[in-house]
Amino acid sequence: MQVEDMVLVSIDDHIIEPADMFERHMPAKYARQAPQYVPGGPDGTGHWEYQGQYTGSVGLNAVATWPRDEWGFDPVGFEEMRPGCYDLDLRVRDMDANGVLASMCFPTFAGFNGMSLARSTVDRALTRIVVSAYNDWHIDELAGEHPGRFVPLAILPVFDWDGMVTEIGRVAAKGCRAVSLPEAPYGVGLPQFGDGDYWDPVFRACVDHDVAVCLHIGGSFGLVQRPPGAIIDNLIILAPQLSAIIATDLILAGTFVRFPQLKVALSEGGIGWIPFFLDRLDRHIWNHRWTGLRIADVEMTASELWNRNFLGCFITDPTALRVRDRIGLDTIAWECDYPHSDSTWPCSPETLMGELQNAGATDDEIHRITWENACRFFDFDPFVHRTREQSTVAALRAAAIDVDTTETSRATYRQRYFAGT
Amino acid sequence: MQVEDMVLVSIDDHIIEPADMFERHMPAKYARQAPQYVPGGPDGTGHWEYQGQYTGSVGLNAVATWPRDEWGFDPVGFEEMRPGCYDLDLRVRDMDANGVLASMCFPTFAGFNGMSLARSTVDRALTRIVVSAYNDWHIDELAGEHPGRFVPLAILPVFDWDGMVTEIGRVAAKGCRAVSLPEAPYGVGLPQFGDGDYWDPVFRACVDHDVAVCLHIGGSFGLVQRPPGAIIDNLIILAPQLSAIIATDLILAGTFVRFPQLKVALSEGGIGWIPFFLDRLDRHIWNHRWTGLRIADVEMTASELWNRNFLGCFITDPTALRVRDRIGLDTIAWECDYPHSDSTWPCSPETLMGELQNAGATDDEIHRITWENACRFFDFDPFVHRTREQSTVAALRAAAIDVDTTETSRATYRQRYFAGT
Repeated sequence: MQVEDMVLVSIDDHIIEPADMFERHMPAKYARQAPQYVPGGPDGTGHWEYQGQYTGSVGLNAVATWPRDEWGFDPVGFEEMRPGCYDLDLRVRDMDANGVLASMCFPTFAGFNGMSLARSTVDRALTRIVVSAYNDWHIDELAGEHPGRFVPLAILPVFDWDGMVTEIGRVAAKGCRAVSLPEAPYGVGLPQFGDGDYWDPVFRACVDHDVAVCLHIGGSFGLVQRPPGAIIDNLIILAPQLSAIIATDLILAGTFVRFPQLKVALSEGGIGWIPFFLDRLDRHIWNHRWTGLRIADVEMTASELWNRNFLGCFITDPTALRVRDRIGLDTIAWECDYPHSDSTWPCSPETLMGELQNAGATDDEIHRITWENACRFFDFDPFVHRTREQSTVAALRAAAIDVDTTETSRATYRQRYFAGT
Repeated sequence: MQVEDMVLVSIDDHIIEPADMFERHMPAKYARQAPQYVPGGPDGTGHWEYQGQYTGSVGLNAVATWPRDEWGFDPVGFEEMRPGCYDLDLRVRDMDANGVLASMCFPTFAGFNGMSLARSTVDRALTRIVVSAYNDWHIDELAGEHPGRFVPLAILPVFDWDGMVTEIGRVAAKGCRAVSLPEAPYGVGLPQFGDGDYWDPVFRACVDHDVAVCLHIGGSFGLVQRPPGAIIDNLIILAPQLSAIIATDLILAGTFVRFPQLKVALSEGGIGWIPFFLDRLDRHIWNHRWTGLRIADVEMTASELWNRNFLGCFITDPTALRVRDRIGLDTIAWECDYPHSDSTWPCSPETLMGELQNAGATDDEIHRITWENACRFFDFDPFVHRTREQSTVAALRAAAIDVDTTETSRATYRQRYFAGT
């Protein structure tokens, strides 16, 4: 199998919401109350306002094609970004140039899990409407107008369990099979997942509607006290390590005792911590049986639970791929993370194939990891709108040979933006 | 190579300090001011008092040979413990029964890193004397009276950098090549390792005297906010995962830029997180070169730094052993963790060999992991006092066939204790 033959479905990318996103999706009578994009001043960093409050950044860490000395983790405005970050048609072209067939996109200004929107909520009834408008934009416009290219992902009004239940049913009826939730709700002022009064109706709705829960890294940063003056590298390096904390919380909260069918994807969580975690938890359940820990509805090992309920994903994880059998071959998916700094775009196929080949993966294993597991987990058929032959890295890239993926400075993007080119 | 042929050096076990430990080691004029063991009441859990304050538990998690339904993480008194926990001669017999040639023992009442003693300090000058008395007991009595059986490990007066420097020189002169420090000092009220005014003289003394720093898990528990009502399993499972946080802190604090020769052992830290951590950090340094992160005095990868400065250790880590080449074959050591609940005692040789063989380790690799790396790192020659033939699992166990390692209840130990048998 060659790089050209791969089929790539990425389950974690980031869309920068365009400034006009609410125009076509808020009910007319609330149109003027939607979040508004406020263009930036001379520094170029616009933001979103809602109910009189700052409610999220425009582009965060959207560094695609920038020279590395211009990288940063500060918000940036539309002016300086590569247009593929926020222009839906150009996003698809950037996917083509990287050979990526389909992508699951997390929000930016709304928060990876809708928390930025939720945090700024004064009028909760209105926020439910805004969340629905976000989802309609995402499902009908982003995914709907680019058939087969986006795996839809909804956000929820996280401050209301009944609002979440209603929205899960609504988006599921529109064909959306995934919702993004905060990975550590107790770290952001919400009840922990073990609080059944709050979360059980939500998880029940997910199971009833066959909707998977996506927990994206970042929501747990605040859980870990960092040393005074910690440099930015600290959290970049640790971010996926914290996934073990999230998985521990979720499993020990009895989530899968009560909801054996709940599906959980750990987005941008990496997979290198999983073998160590499963070895530890499998031994713990046997060795510390005095604690009476129960992790599932029926007796099973942590490894069996992992295979039943979880999907992990990675951008690059060369050593973990060597022990993919220990993680569970059906539990590993891949992500591109465009347009963030950890992304391998526009060389994802080469990077990924190099790691898979070094790890000795067979063709069958490569297909499971690069698209089959993701498609099964999220009930997404990638070949409805194009044949499999039209879906390979080679076929997609052939349609995008004119896409310029070379290094381009912020100043150049700014010039082009204001020149309208 | 057979189980019987192995040589085992454990770099993490736990000694329960005997009640009379200070009698022979405090200077006469301060004898009455030493920490005092206060026998327990009806519940049997004695404790130590010092300067009028409670200053540490007697036995914590010392569950060796107890039936699992009697396990717990609460302190326990001498009465209910297996005598090998606190009786130095019987400890050696328990090591023999498990085929363990040599052991590095962390404190219990004093805290794994001396922090329990330091925290209860009113008179710091006196506490320096107490710390020295602890170390003299450890080096002269525990290690000195059982030649070749214990790798000495000192504690330090962690509240005083100058006191630490003095004590490092003093214990080094007595042949001790390791000191235990809190793994996350900023989590226990001390300056972080990046605070050069405080820690640089200490690290300098370690380098000058060829003394390694041991950071035992547990000191970072308080860094991570746990969900309300988290069950005890939570921290047992996560404990070694937190080692990645400690390693990140230490490296990002510039420790090895300033002290290229400092040796750091991550005690009870597990090794499964290391491949993931090194993959991440190696890529980070290249991919995020915009941050200008510098991890060493000369340009090197994280993997090279790891091989130069660190020693990891594991109790059981079957999957990590499969990727031992990625961790670094000279950076892996083994530990027994007697008498704690995670220990594999008295079946360590069989458990360890099973994992090594499943991972395909060669005889040479087995020797490096089971004793050579530990002995080199801590400058400990295990064959001074007995030949190598006398040091194998088979030879040691042959001398201990009368040691009863079968399950024994707390009630039985209590009866024997008060009967004096």
